[in-house]
Amino acid sequence: MKNFEFPHRRRNPLSGEWVLVSPHRNNRPWKGAVEHHSDPDLPSFKQDCPLCPKVERANGEANPDYANTFVFNNDFAALLPDSEEITSAEDDLMQAESAQGCARVVCFSPRHDKTLPELTLHELTQVVSTWKSQYQELSQDYACVQIFENKGEMMGCSQPHPHGQIWAHHHLSTEVEREDVHQAGYYLQHGRPLLADYIERELDQQSRIVEQNENWLAVVPFWAAWPFEILLVARAEVADFTQLNQVQERDLAAILKNITTRYDNLFRCRFPYSMGWHNAPATGQDNRHWRLHAHFYPPLLRSATIKKHMVGYEMLAESQRDLSAEKAAELLRQVSLTHYKEKHD
Amino acid sequence: MKNFEFPHRRRNPLSGEWVLVSPHRNNRPWKGAVEHHSDPDLPSFKQDCPLCPKVERANGEANPDYANTFVFNNDFAALLPDSEEITSAEDDLMQAESAQGCARVVCFSPRHDKTLPELTLHELTQVVSTWKSQYQELSQDYACVQIFENKGEMMGCSQPHPHGQIWAHHHLSTEVEREDVHQAGYYLQHGRPLLADYIERELDQQSRIVEQNENWLAVVPFWAAWPFEILLVARAEVADFTQLNQVQERDLAAILKNITTRYDNLFRCRFPYSMGWHNAPATGQDNRHWRLHAHFYPPLLRSATIKKHMVGYEMLAESQRDLSAEKAAELLRQVSLTHYKEKHD
Ligand SMILES: O=P(O)(O)O[C@H]1O[C@H](CO)[C@@H](O)[C@H](O)[C@H]1O
Ligand SMILES: O=P(O)(O)O[C@H]1O[C@H](CO)[C@@H](O)[C@H](O)[C@H]1O
Repeated sequence: MKNFEFPHRRRNPLSGEWVLVSPHRNNRPWKGAVEHHSDPDLPSFKQDCPLCPKVERANGEANPDYANTFVFNNDFAALLPDSEEITSAEDDLMQAESAQGCARVVCFSPRHDKTLPELTLHELTQVVSTWKSQYQELSQDYACVQIFENKGEMMGCSQPHPHGQIWAHHHLSTEVEREDVHQAGYYLQHGRPLLADYIERELDQQSRIVEQNENWLAVVPFWAAWPFEILLVARAEVADFTQLNQVQERDLAAILKNITTRYDNLFRCRFPYSMGWHNAPATGQDNRHWRLHAHFYPPLLRSATIKKHMVGYEMLAESQRDLSAEKAAELLRQVSLTHYKEKHD
Repeated sequence: MKNFEFPHRRRNPLSGEWVLVSPHRNNRPWKGAVEHHSDPDLPSFKQDCPLCPKVERANGEANPDYANTFVFNNDFAALLPDSEEITSAEDDLMQAESAQGCARVVCFSPRHDKTLPELTLHELTQVVSTWKSQYQELSQDYACVQIFENKGEMMGCSQPHPHGQIWAHHHLSTEVEREDVHQAGYYLQHGRPLLADYIERELDQQSRIVEQNENWLAVVPFWAAWPFEILLVARAEVADFTQLNQVQERDLAAILKNITTRYDNLFRCRFPYSMGWHNAPATGQDNRHWRLHAHFYPPLLRSATIKKHMVGYEMLAESQRDLSAEKAAELLRQVSLTHYKEKHD
């Protein structure tokens, strides 16, 4: 591995994109932006939080006095079910198409102050089964059901009450289509799902594993772009949420708790990230090449207030990282599995 | 255009990526992160700024007492000229290759306090000819010479002294390769460069034009992802910086001044962005399909302190925007061409 200490590139086989790795660069002094450390002590309930139980939302409806998770239609949805068809002329330089769909909000629990790692295993299992039932429902109508969470102000989250979102639509998104093409191409060549082969390599090599159980494997992928990026993959032949059994759901709750606890403990803060699920397209196509997985994209690099900026070079050329995937996995393995806040409770 | 008021998608023909446009969504209330308004009154010279004339840098060298632009090797380069060859086994799930190259810093002027729109036309012409001569030199050795600027702390800029960077390497970056494939494909089909045809459409339609002169056209492209994104295209048959003549250089300085002045005047702040040039690959290949262009990716959405976050949905699915490209171009056309700070000088 000696030559991996020099600048090199690694290729993401799911997207076909390369990442520039400059492991020597993490030592440079940082005089740039320092983020504001936002780890407020939140109250367990907030009168004016539109996600808390019994509070009235923008549309005049009051939330129910919910006990576990609660799902509602986004009052400011980016997608609408009945938007008009685009009738613009065919032009390969100005291609447009209408986009019909819906957007929902998933409150993880009634508690305003509990993020995923702070929920009990039982509560986390409720989150997983809500994702599953939402996916089951929405994939009847929509080919592409994007379940995701933006965690923390740094990731554009505009409501502190812990929640995720689901945006669903008929078309396949750019990323899902790209991953579909690459997984299908691999299957054609090797007769095996790309991610099935990939997780075997990771289990062999061990160096990038962060967490594992019977049904799930979490690694800092070989091609990670974000400093502490994680790829979470189903170990069984599961292409989407509808195929998960109860044991797989329970194991998913367990590994989610461990991943997010390690994240929070790394810099002793509510570790911001965007995460989301890539389910196989619900188009009726043969999905044997696809494996259900989630990506975690966290921005922090060196501390609770210094993040990696994906800017000029990254936007115009390709992602660049300052520490190796192996080093990041090692740092995540080293921290405790007891959440840093637990001691104070 | 009525149906463009509903959610729809537009396709970027340079990258093949789609963008979700939700024009109705800009009205939603914003309770998320508010950026810190960083528009400090900078001194014209700073003793401890490693980019100011005569100051000693990290490596012990003192900067010359330069008068126009000044270029030096990045003391913390992400690329090194003599990194070792990767000898790892061929594996299509863990592909890696060595990356040799160099990274330079381009100080735009000796003045610590003058950003691009605040430079004179003469000074801006110096910046353009520095880009050109650097490109000429580096493209002898490297196939891919990425010239860019990260402006503002929000864009990860770690030195307030106005400057850009150049990262050059043998391999083609992911983005340049992608644009090369799409432009070559279009040329094969139509016998004309993609961007040549595209700017004709824009000149016909007018609605997305921000600035133009004899040699350059600046538009908010039909497929813009960032709220006030700009695509700046050479109108003549120019594939890279080596082919620019003096009139084209002077016209480039002029349009740069106008673009960046409009940006600053929009929210009366030093408008942050990442910008950079896409030159044709310097591989010796036939580049008739390629047209020299720059992308400006600015994050601000509603004010000097509220930005667009490209997060969960955007990272996992595709970019999403909250106002139309046409509206953004209109807003940029409406502001003055006199820089808001000029009056106070
Ligand atoms: O080189 P700088 O200005 O220190 O660093 C900045 O630009 C680089 C190139 O886009 C990025 O990789 C860094 O994340 C960013 O902070
Ligand atoms: O829907 P929210 O949480 O208000 O908004 C956040 O997530 C969206 C989906 O990733 C993004 O488009 C927005 O830019 C971001 O601020």
